Formats: sequence, C-alpha cells, structure tokens
Amino acid sequence: MSNLHLGEHISRQFNEDLEEVRSKVLQMGGVVEEQLGRAISALINNDNRLAREVVKNDVRVNALEVEIDEECTRIVARRQPAASDLRLVMAVIKTITDLERIGDEVKRVAKMVHEELEGALDEEIRQELEHMGELVKGMLHSVLDAFARTDARSAVAVAKLDHKVDIKYQVITRQLMTHMAQDPTQIPTMMNVLWAARAMERMGDRCENIAEYVIYLVLGKDVRHVSLDDYERELEAS
Amino acid sequence: MSNLHLGEHISRQFNEDLEEVRSKVLQMGGVVEEQLGRAISALINNDNRLAREVVKNDVRVNALEVEIDEECTRIVARRQPAASDLRLVMAVIKTITDLERIGDEVKRVAKMVHEELEGALDEEIRQELEHMGELVKGMLHSVLDAFARTDARSAVAVAKLDHKVDIKYQVITRQLMTHMAQDPTQIPTMMNVLWAARAMERMGDRCENIAEYVIYLVLGKDVRHVSLDDYERELEAS
Repeated sequence: MSNLHLGEHISRQFNEDLEEVRSKVLQMGGVVEEQLGRAISALINNDNRLAREVVKNDVRVNALEVEIDEECTRIVARRQPAASDLRLVMAVIKTITDLERIGDEVKRVAKMVHEELEGALDEEIRQELEHMGELVKGMLHSVLDAFARTDARSAVAVAKLDHKVDIKYQVITRQLMTHMAQDPTQIPTMMNVLWAARAMERMGDRCENIAEYVIYLVLGKDVRHVSLDDYERELEAS
Repeated sequence: MSNLHLGEHISRQFNEDLEEVRSKVLQMGGVVEEQLGRAISALINNDNRLAREVVKNDVRVNALEVEIDEECTRIVARRQPAASDLRLVMAVIKTITDLERIGDEVKRVAKMVHEELEGALDEEIRQELEHMGELVKGMLHSVLDAFARTDARSAVAVAKLDHKVDIKYQVITRQLMTHMAQDPTQIPTMMNVLWAARAMERMGDRCENIAEYVIYLVLGKDVRHVSLDDYERELEAS
C-alpha cells in the first residue's frame, strides 16, 4: 500500500468523521426546533401537558451537546485537522453551545406555561407571542439550513432578522406594562409572560450567534463585533 | 540537533503558547471584573458618567475574545495538542465565550443606569442590588482564581454559590413587583431595575459555566447537566 493510498484512506475516514459531526449538529438542531415549536404551541394554547413534555425532553438536547463535544475533541486529537476542517470543528463547538442554550430558553418558556400562566393571556398578547414565536422559529430553521448548506449569504440574512425579533419584544413589553398599570393584581402574571417573551428574544440572539459561526466557517473571518453590512457587501462582490 | 532536542524545543514553545493563552484569559477576566465592579458602582451611586465609560469599554472585552479565539485555533492547527493540553484549549474556547457574554450583561447593567434610572432607586432596593452585585463579583473573582490555579475544588464551590445569587434575584423581583403594585406609574422604572438584576443573575449562571469548564479541565469529565454534589464527593475521596 502506497503512502498515497494511506493518505486517501485517512482522509476518507476523516471526511466521514466530519460528516457524522455535521449531521449530528443538524439532528440536535432538529430536536431544538421541535422543542421550540411545541413550547410555543403550549404557550399559545395553554397546554400544560405539552409544556411538561417539553421540559422533560430537554435532556435529549443536553445529551446531544455532550456527545458532539466529545466527538469534536476526539477529531481534533486524532485527525489534527487544519484550515477549513479545523474551522468546521471550531464552528461546531460554538454552534452546539448556542443550540443547547436555545434549548434552555425553550425549557424556560415551557416552565412558565405549566407553572404560572394558567390561561391568563388575553387574545392580543397571545397573538403577539405567537408571531414572535414564529419569527424565532423561522430564524432557527433558516440558520440550521444555512449551516447545512454552509451558505454565508443566508447566514447574513438570518443575522439581520434578529432586529425584527427585538422590535416585537419591545412591542410586547410595552403592552404588558400597560396591562400591569391598568390592573396591578395582574403584575405577577404579566411578569411571567414577559419572561417568556424575553426567553424568545434571547433565542433570536443565539440564532444570530450561530449565523456568525456559519459566516466564519465560509469566509474564515470572525464577524462577531463587526457590522454585518460590511460582510454582506463583501459577499455581494464575490 | 537530535530529534529529542527538536522535540524539547517544540514542547517548550508549545508550553509558552499555552501559558500565553492562559494569561490572556486571566487578563480578559480581569477586564470583565473591573467592568463589573464599575457597573455596579455606577448603578448604586447613579453615576451616569461611569456607566457610559463601562459601555464604551466593552470593546476591550470583545477584542480580547477574538484575539484569544484566534490564538487557540492557531495552537490547535500548529501544535496538534493531545489529552490535557487539548482539554485546556477547549476549556479556554468555552470560557472566553462566557466571559464575553458576562461583559455583555455588564454593559446591559451600565446602559440601564445612564439611560433609564435617573436616581429612581430607594435605599432598600439599592442595598439589595449592591449585595447581589457583590455576590456575582465574588463568584467571578473566585472562578478566575480557580481557573488560574486549575483548582477543581474551588470551582465546585463557586458553582454552588450560584444558588445564592438566584435567591437574591427572587427577593429583588418580589420587592420590585410590590413597588409596581403600590405605584403603577413606577412600573417602567422598576422594570429597568429588574433587567439590571436579571443581567446579574445571568452573570452568575455564566460563572457557573466557567466553573464547570475548570472541573472538565482538571478531571477530564464533562460535568454539565450532572449533579455537582457527585463530583464534590469524588474530589473529596481523591
């Protein structure tokens, strides 16, 4: 067996390892997406039973994070990846941290439902929460898609969506404060709705983080703490 | 020059690289600690000017994160670390993410001061916030110390402190809700105080995360999502 063949063999095995990690990240993302969809549904329909299931299922997300983390450490130790392969591993390590934290926020929303809300939402707030939930679900789905296709343009588009989530959050905050002022006995309940909205707003931030890792993966540039517009222009020009 | 010498040379250079990264993490931690101390002081003393400085200085934290991240990627690519060295690099990558996010929460507290509060805190809440700030500052200082000395026992002790921060946060939340109920015109202001308290509560969570990375670094075990008591017993027995 020539060195060349050995090289090919190692490289093939390595590619399989990387593919395995990538597909596990998408699997983890899929679980988080499903959890998020169910948490929003539980919140909107005041479904305690569904909310409890979401809380219980968070262990699946955590287990996948630990599993992928170990796999990445193994790959770095055994395969000594360089350049773009190493970037992929680094992007994965960071992505799964944010996915796991999105899972935590989802659990937070679900806990609010089954412990606190007890059907206290009026129609207007319910609709706003539902819309905010759809925005965040859309961001999560698109950023996982951008990761799967290593598509920096889509990632930039996702990152820019976070602005919409932030505005929606401000609208809901104002509505809730008005409710509190009109009926102070409602303050504890409204606070809990606000925590749920806040949790969704954080999910948007974390989707934006993941989008930045995808851009890093494609361009090899760290775009955190810099204007996304600059990178968008760069991508347009390329 | 024999291979052995070459090996020693590479290894010495490698150790220097790792030391450099460790010391930069501590430098970054020092900046975040200083930022936190100043944000709390600005909050308690309603010092707008100090608060603005804190907001401005957050770029230092961000720059250090990007710098250390790049250094870690370089080390993995060039030195191909194994076992405990690789664990150190992985722990550093995760630690600086949490340090940077603590920096973001600090900035959030500072922004509340100079934009919103305008001297609206009564003495009781001021004292509670100050105490909560001291708890979080203590956690951050201790966990950086545990990182510097790679001391898993101290790290476990820090992680367990987060409970105190959570309790303090609940106390402050209740006080603020009482204020809101008594005087609904105060709701927007009290909400901002609550965001500041919430930001400090998140800092505690992130100190706990860092503590877990230190334990991972020392024991080679991922202690996220498992009971810290188990690891404490293991450490006591060792």
